[in-house]
Amino acid sequence: MADFTLYYWPLPFRGQFIRAVLADAGAAWDEPDADAVSDIMSRDPAQQPVPFMAPPMLVDRSGVAVAQMPSILFHLADRFDLMPAEPQLAALTTKVVNDANDVLDEITLNGGQKMWTDDSWAEYRPRLQRWMAIWEETAHRHGSGDLLLGGDAPGLADLTTAVLWFTMADKLPVLDELLRDSAPMVHAMSHRLMEGPALRRMRQDTDARFGDAYCGGQIEKSLRAALKSG
Amino acid sequence: MADFTLYYWPLPFRGQFIRAVLADAGAAWDEPDADAVSDIMSRDPAQQPVPFMAPPMLVDRSGVAVAQMPSILFHLADRFDLMPAEPQLAALTTKVVNDANDVLDEITLNGGQKMWTDDSWAEYRPRLQRWMAIWEETAHRHGSGDLLLGGDAPGLADLTTAVLWFTMADKLPVLDELLRDSAPMVHAMSHRLMEGPALRRMRQDTDARFGDAYCGGQIEKSLRAALKSG
Repeated sequence: MADFTLYYWPLPFRGQFIRAVLADAGAAWDEPDADAVSDIMSRDPAQQPVPFMAPPMLVDRSGVAVAQMPSILFHLADRFDLMPAEPQLAALTTKVVNDANDVLDEITLNGGQKMWTDDSWAEYRPRLQRWMAIWEETAHRHGSGDLLLGGDAPGLADLTTAVLWFTMADKLPVLDELLRDSAPMVHAMSHRLMEGPALRRMRQDTDARFGDAYCGGQIEKSLRAALKSG
Repeated sequence: MADFTLYYWPLPFRGQFIRAVLADAGAAWDEPDADAVSDIMSRDPAQQPVPFMAPPMLVDRSGVAVAQMPSILFHLADRFDLMPAEPQLAALTTKVVNDANDVLDEITLNGGQKMWTDDSWAEYRPRLQRWMAIWEETAHRHGSGDLLLGGDAPGLADLTTAVLWFTMADKLPVLDELLRDSAPMVHAMSHRLMEGPALRRMRQDTDARFGDAYCGGQIEKSLRAALKSG
């Protein structure tokens, strides 16, 4: 019996962060299918393990159920000792996670509220580069000394960073070059971390299940079309 | 000299959560004007106190600078002992904060990416009611025993809940009735908390500075127009 049950769509995107933390910790989890995810999401809040709006939602056999990607990650960081003890670095870790969540919102135009066009992508691109520069500066300031990123044992900030940027560049390869140019340290550490044995195995599993899908839906189609033209 | 400097627009919205936690803790803070906020936000990441995309950003004289509304709240909760010790309740507290952040995104159509129309508001309204129902169920489950909401000393979940729903209903009064009908416990606790002396003084100050403004901009105009018709 698995330690955790992850309710998420059959896609990388937000779910991949949680899978990576579980895999890195050597935890076993199962993932109900999309029908089960739809079912639990649309129940009356009184009938949900935790009252929640949208996946991801994680049930921990220890008795905790929690939704919201950042909150699930904080809970797992607590379970698996992935949060820095130093308050400033803990605060920065939560910022990295919330930043990642924002980047995911932006790159999907908030769950596909609009579709990407060549023009809107061209307009957005410098902002994506600014996000990359924000990450690179964070790695620059905290890649040694007050260590947030790049230590021997990856913490939540490392795992979040690696999943965000590696997955995006892996599934949308034209962005790998943009990342390497805009944030070379982040590019290198993301590749290194995701190519370690536990995370490589996790990716082999999700690649087998989800193929090349990134965020899914019409928004992914429009994103791929805009990246091709751009 | 103030203990904290809060960089945020001259509006309640996301900033109000941080002001409320600071006011509740009896902390002193200052708020640079909108030009200073624009200036620090648009600097190269290397020239920012913490590399960040958008306000709110808080500088703590203890040496920490942090951005992202949820992260600032977690940092202050750590400083002022507002986070429950029990891991499940700490996880739920972070969920409440991230849920609040999502509601703010939704009610502004993600910073005004589109404008509200009568039709889009009518379509959205049941989802806002579902958020309210999610909060009410959380209060129902954790309003006694495993106490998350409604204890004698308000924690971060209480403060976040109260600021989210009270401010929305106070600035957009037609939503006060919707909240009372959909989430009576949350309505009552939000009013009770925001009417205590420290938070009342904070609101008198922000009302004097910002008037009736809620989220500001064209999106607030379109929201008010849709609420008037609906």
